[in-house]
Amino acid sequence: MNKINIGLIGYGTVGSGVVKLLRARKSYIKNKFNTEFVIRTLCDRSIHKKKTRGLGKARLTKNIQDVLGDPKIDIVVELIGGMHPAKEIALKSMKNGKHVVTANKELIANCGKELFQLAKKNHCHLYFESSVGAGIPIIKSITEGIVGNKFKNIYGIINGTCNFILSEMTQNHYSFAQALAEAQEKGFAESNPALDINGMDSAHKLAILIYLAFGKSVNVKEIYREGITHISHDDIEYATSLGLTIKLLAIAKKEDNRIEARVHPTLISKDHPLASINSIYNAIYMKTDPLGSTLLSGEGAGQMAAASGVVSDLINFATRGHSSALPSNLHSEAPGLKIQKIDQIKTKFYIRFMVIDKPGILSAITGVLGKHNISINSVTQNAHNPSLTVPVIMLTDYTSGKMLRLALNKIQKLPLVRGKPVAIRMEKLW
Amino acid sequence: MNKINIGLIGYGTVGSGVVKLLRARKSYIKNKFNTEFVIRTLCDRSIHKKKTRGLGKARLTKNIQDVLGDPKIDIVVELIGGMHPAKEIALKSMKNGKHVVTANKELIANCGKELFQLAKKNHCHLYFESSVGAGIPIIKSITEGIVGNKFKNIYGIINGTCNFILSEMTQNHYSFAQALAEAQEKGFAESNPALDINGMDSAHKLAILIYLAFGKSVNVKEIYREGITHISHDDIEYATSLGLTIKLLAIAKKEDNRIEARVHPTLISKDHPLASINSIYNAIYMKTDPLGSTLLSGEGAGQMAAASGVVSDLINFATRGHSSALPSNLHSEAPGLKIQKIDQIKTKFYIRFMVIDKPGILSAITGVLGKHNISINSVTQNAHNPSLTVPVIMLTDYTSGKMLRLALNKIQKLPLVRGKPVAIRMEKLW
Repeated sequence: MNKINIGLIGYGTVGSGVVKLLRARKSYIKNKFNTEFVIRTLCDRSIHKKKTRGLGKARLTKNIQDVLGDPKIDIVVELIGGMHPAKEIALKSMKNGKHVVTANKELIANCGKELFQLAKKNHCHLYFESSVGAGIPIIKSITEGIVGNKFKNIYGIINGTCNFILSEMTQNHYSFAQALAEAQEKGFAESNPALDINGMDSAHKLAILIYLAFGKSVNVKEIYREGITHISHDDIEYATSLGLTIKLLAIAKKEDNRIEARVHPTLISKDHPLASINSIYNAIYMKTDPLGSTLLSGEGAGQMAAASGVVSDLINFATRGHSSALPSNLHSEAPGLKIQKIDQIKTKFYIRFMVIDKPGILSAITGVLGKHNISINSVTQNAHNPSLTVPVIMLTDYTSGKMLRLALNKIQKLPLVRGKPVAIRMEKLW
Repeated sequence: MNKINIGLIGYGTVGSGVVKLLRARKSYIKNKFNTEFVIRTLCDRSIHKKKTRGLGKARLTKNIQDVLGDPKIDIVVELIGGMHPAKEIALKSMKNGKHVVTANKELIANCGKELFQLAKKNHCHLYFESSVGAGIPIIKSITEGIVGNKFKNIYGIINGTCNFILSEMTQNHYSFAQALAEAQEKGFAESNPALDINGMDSAHKLAILIYLAFGKSVNVKEIYREGITHISHDDIEYATSLGLTIKLLAIAKKEDNRIEARVHPTLISKDHPLASINSIYNAIYMKTDPLGSTLLSGEGAGQMAAASGVVSDLINFATRGHSSALPSNLHSEAPGLKIQKIDQIKTKFYIRFMVIDKPGILSAITGVLGKHNISINSVTQNAHNPSLTVPVIMLTDYTSGKMLRLALNKIQKLPLVRGKPVAIRMEKLW
């Protein structure tokens, strides 16, 4: 029997899920993998307030050093989240020759390269499946499953909160505020949902995917980021009538040595498989050479979905027989890659203008667009009422972020235009 | 530099794809994985008729023994397909201490357990990602990616030919014969498509999935199998009007110690992600505890999609550093599991009866169904013409295969019923 001593740091939602799952699968893991996982030490800053029944002989402590300094601990499971002291825990663990499992997207996004280099140097394993899409095997698929491939692009629905809100707005005709309230009520959104709905959470995960798929260590600040707070229910209705769906997508594309890295609401065809990923489900759609398009989807958040990824990491560590090989060689960066500025990236756009419905308004708007070399593929104006503000929807051909920005700044100042136009990027995924 | 000598047996479509991909990714593999793959020997029974330019110093041979008996060959890549001599190649390779990569579904479906046991005994790696869904990382996801989970059920679209035919019938209103002809023209169906359209190919792959997910070594003959040849264009139209889509699904479900194992055309909701997997794409939809539902999809056939899986297997072998650990412990079977007979399995059914449109016919049919305890959820009869044969569509509640069979045998003999009723199982996937 292969006995593996775990030091578990962080006994919150995910941590207690991991303990629960390890207990539920104990005999299965013994029989199938000839392995016994023992929680030797459980460290949490509020350990004495937590329910710790069923943890057997585990040492309970508030002191991280009780884990890092214990030579009998083989592997440290870090589940506290955030940058500090998570980073110090990962570094110190590996310096002490311990392997590490973490679900910490912020940590891997910001310090991945440094951690992978230390892992290589010290012959440690570093697993992080639950950092993106919880237990959906995204990390393993990219680093091992389709590893012989050249990655061309990645489109991810990797924030369950945003996907839930947009799905509710689409399917149940909710406003953003109603959908957010429902997400909070169901426990799918934090009481402070800022990092989710402003796209930051997706940006962290996208940084990880870019490092794995393209070998580029990207500063999260370089990722263009737009949240979903400005999406109105009207936009969703117009999108639906055009055969489109709005999703918060994390997008990475590589062409030559240029990488696009962006997170924003995106209009995609209703017929694309990503369009049917609803509620809190996550999905990754990747195009690689020579495999083509691959889609992975599943529950990307929640206690047990995250615990599933952590436990899979632990079992994978166990079956590798303490070999010094890393899951894949992640310590080195591909040279010469550059992140493109959003201003230079060309996409099609959906634009909603709110205008006073008087003759000449379309000509004024299209005139400004024309001067910025922006071609219009379609114009829709359904409501007509000269005394009211009505929406005009335009779909553009490919144009750069910069040209669109300049054109909208001008259009916004036209006499008959009211408010700030809403512009949403469109992507053709196949 | 880690140098790995390959003996490649079978230089057909997939074999030449593997050589092509290894060549294209040579410097990437060197830089990222510090590994050089060398095709030391290329064995094919028609080797002298094949284009072998660009193979460097590879020894070309017709004689399998030149691979199996060469102590310098580290890993044998078997790509000839079929049972013999593929089985002898795999066994002999591992007896000689060589690792094995294969894309051979028939071999793994029929001899998986024996091969895994030999692999364990001889400390060999045995990789077979391309045996199901080509390069889509299905095998890796089940055996490693979500390995901590308990599998509940699996629904697979795992035959590209059938999925192409059914998609064309649905989207382009083709008849079965037209769709098959188009598949053959495009190279998506063999000139003898029997093993694809009769469900045998899917059954082989399902046997592999059942072994991996549930630990049950199943005789392929125990898998209930129905092909797609009896599906008419009318059925597809009726299905569409009911919000349903017909897919050839490979289905495995486990409850207690009973396993359902079946391959048949299946009606599923148009809103389910599997319904939007069209053309030659493959997909696996799995429910596991605690992760929930996971979907993987991509190109499940074709030269380079299969080569992608083989090359990923080779790289994974290389990064494991020749450790003696297996990808997962597949040599042992879970005890006490039984495959259920199709007669005992309860599902809902779509049934199309062709009847002479006279009063009393519905009452006669529903009377027989009622006597067999089969409840009807809906009846649709759109065409009315007393002198013609018209279709009546019924959707039943859950009933066993046996009760349905007995009822249909009786109904078929009713005076106003023409031809054999078409019955298609329905599945509620979420």
